[in-house]
Amino acid sequence: MITTDHTTRRHFLKTAGLGLAAAALATTATRAASTKRAPRAQAPADSPATDSPTPALPVKLGLASYTVRKFDLEKIVLPFVKRLGLTRMTLKDAHLPLTATDDQIRATIAKIKAAGITPYAAGTIYMKKPADVEQAFHYAAVAGFEMIVGAPNVDLLPLAEKHAKQTNIKLAIHNHGPDNPLYSSPLDAYALIKNMDPLMGLCLDIGHTQRYALDPIAVFKTTFARVHDIHTKDVTASSKAGKTVEMGRGVIDTVGFLKTAAALNYAGTLSFEHEKDPDDPFAGVAESIGYTRGVLKAI
Amino acid sequence: MITTDHTTRRHFLKTAGLGLAAAALATTATRAASTKRAPRAQAPADSPATDSPTPALPVKLGLASYTVRKFDLEKIVLPFVKRLGLTRMTLKDAHLPLTATDDQIRATIAKIKAAGITPYAAGTIYMKKPADVEQAFHYAAVAGFEMIVGAPNVDLLPLAEKHAKQTNIKLAIHNHGPDNPLYSSPLDAYALIKNMDPLMGLCLDIGHTQRYALDPIAVFKTTFARVHDIHTKDVTASSKAGKTVEMGRGVIDTVGFLKTAAALNYAGTLSFEHEKDPDDPFAGVAESIGYTRGVLKAI
Repeated sequence: MITTDHTTRRHFLKTAGLGLAAAALATTATRAASTKRAPRAQAPADSPATDSPTPALPVKLGLASYTVRKFDLEKIVLPFVKRLGLTRMTLKDAHLPLTATDDQIRATIAKIKAAGITPYAAGTIYMKKPADVEQAFHYAAVAGFEMIVGAPNVDLLPLAEKHAKQTNIKLAIHNHGPDNPLYSSPLDAYALIKNMDPLMGLCLDIGHTQRYALDPIAVFKTTFARVHDIHTKDVTASSKAGKTVEMGRGVIDTVGFLKTAAALNYAGTLSFEHEKDPDDPFAGVAESIGYTRGVLKAI
Repeated sequence: MITTDHTTRRHFLKTAGLGLAAAALATTATRAASTKRAPRAQAPADSPATDSPTPALPVKLGLASYTVRKFDLEKIVLPFVKRLGLTRMTLKDAHLPLTATDDQIRATIAKIKAAGITPYAAGTIYMKKPADVEQAFHYAAVAGFEMIVGAPNVDLLPLAEKHAKQTNIKLAIHNHGPDNPLYSSPLDAYALIKNMDPLMGLCLDIGHTQRYALDPIAVFKTTFARVHDIHTKDVTASSKAGKTVEMGRGVIDTVGFLKTAAALNYAGTLSFEHEKDPDDPFAGVAESIGYTRGVLKAI
C-alpha cells in the first residue's frame, strides 16, 4: 500500500451514489453465492461455494481487504470476495479496528468464516512503540490469524519476535518502496530477520519491490525461505512514480513471477492488493484476478 | 446470446440503485481515461489511450455490447470499454436501434469513434423476412460496420449474400446452441455458407458450441476459413443446462482454444459476450478479459 493514502484508510464512503453502486454489487454477489450446485468431485484449493467454481491452480489466491477499504465488510466486501471465487483474505483495520474488543473481534471473524472465507492475516499493521506490538499480537491471537502483515519499527523487532514465539503467529514484514524509509526494500527487512526465528518473515509486495527498481523474481528467490505472504499487483514504472494498475498492464514480469511461484511450490497466498480506483476497485481487481488465473492455468 | 432473453434486450434499466452503480463506474472510467501519459514506442493491437496500457497480444479483443445491454452507451458503456483497455466493440440494437434514422446511426458511430473505440460489427441481428435483410445491410452500411453478426432465416441466405456482395459487408452467422433450432450448431451454418461468397461466414459462439456438446477447438479448426468473429465466454456444462460464467470457471478448454487462435493467426476479434449478471456484468466480464489476456500472454 502507498503510505500517502494513510489518511483515507478509515474514511468510509458516504456518497449515496457509491453506496448504491456497492449495494448493486452485493445484490448480485449474494444471488450468485446462494445458487446451489452439485458438489465437485475434487475441490481445487481456490474453490468457493458458488455457481462458478474457479480453476484448480498451483498457488492459493486471496484478497487484501485494503483493496476495498472504503466498503462495508458484511454488505459489500464478503459478497464480493465470494463472487471473485476467493476463499482467503487479509483484514485491514478499516474492516476490523485494532481497538476492537475481543468480543467484537470474535464476532467479525465469525461472520467472515460463516461466508466460507478464511481470514488468514491482519494488516498491514504499523507498530511504533512496544504497546503497538502487544496490541497487534493480542488482536491477531484473539482473531486466530496465522500471521500479521506488519511494519514494526526496527528497534521493536526483538519484541515482535518474542510475541511471535509466544503466540506462534508469523510476522510478515511489508516492504513499502521508495515512499517510506522503513523497509523501503524487502532486502532491508530480510537482512534484519533472516537470522531470527522462522516465524519472522516477509510479505513481499511485488509492486513496491518493482518501484524500488528491484526485480521481484530475483528478490523472491533470494528471500523465498522467509516469504510468508505476497501482495500482488502491477505498477506503471520501476520508480517512485510507478502507480498500481491492473495486472498485465504494467512493467512487472507477471508471467515470470507466477512461473517462479509455481516452480518453488510457494505455499503461501498471493494476496491481491489493488490500490487503484479506491471508490470503485471491483472491475480492476477482478481483471487482475482473472489475469493471474489465466497465467497460472496456461504455464 | 440466449434467445429466451430477447424480451429484455430493449429494457433499459431504470432502477435508481443500478443507475447510480453505473454512474459510479462511469466516473472512475472517465477519470482513468482522461489521464494523459507519454505515448508508447510501439502500440499493441489492443492498446487504448489510458493510463493502463494493455499487453501486446496475438489476438484482438473486443466487447459484444450485449454484455452491457441494460446500460446507457455514452454514460456507462463507452467509459467502461475504455477502462477495460479495449478498442473494439460490436453493437447490439439496444445501443443502436435497427429503426434509427441514418443521421442517428451516424451520430452514435461518431460518439463511439470519438472515444477511441472501433465499432466493427452489429449484432446479433435476426432476419425473418426480406425487409429485415435489407434493413440490416442498410443499417450496417450507414454505420460503416465491417460485418453483421446475424441470424437470417435459412431461406434468406441467398438474399443476404447478394447484399453482402453489394455492400462488401461480411455476414457472420451466429450459432445459438440447443435453445434455438435456427443454427443450433455452427456446423449447420458452415454447411450452408461454405460454398457461398467468402463474405459469408460465422460468428463462432464458443459457449453455445460447447452447450451443443461440440468441441469449440475442433469446430474452429474445421470452419476456420469462414470464422469472421468469435463470441468468447465460458459455460458450466456441455449441454442445454450450461450457463455462462467467468472464463476459466467453466468446462471450455480456454487455454487450448486460445492456443489454437494464436497458432492459426486468427485475424478476427475475440468478442466478450458475458450473459451472466446483466444488472451488474462489470466485474464478471473484467475477470474474463483478464483471464484471456493472462492466457494469451503466458502461452
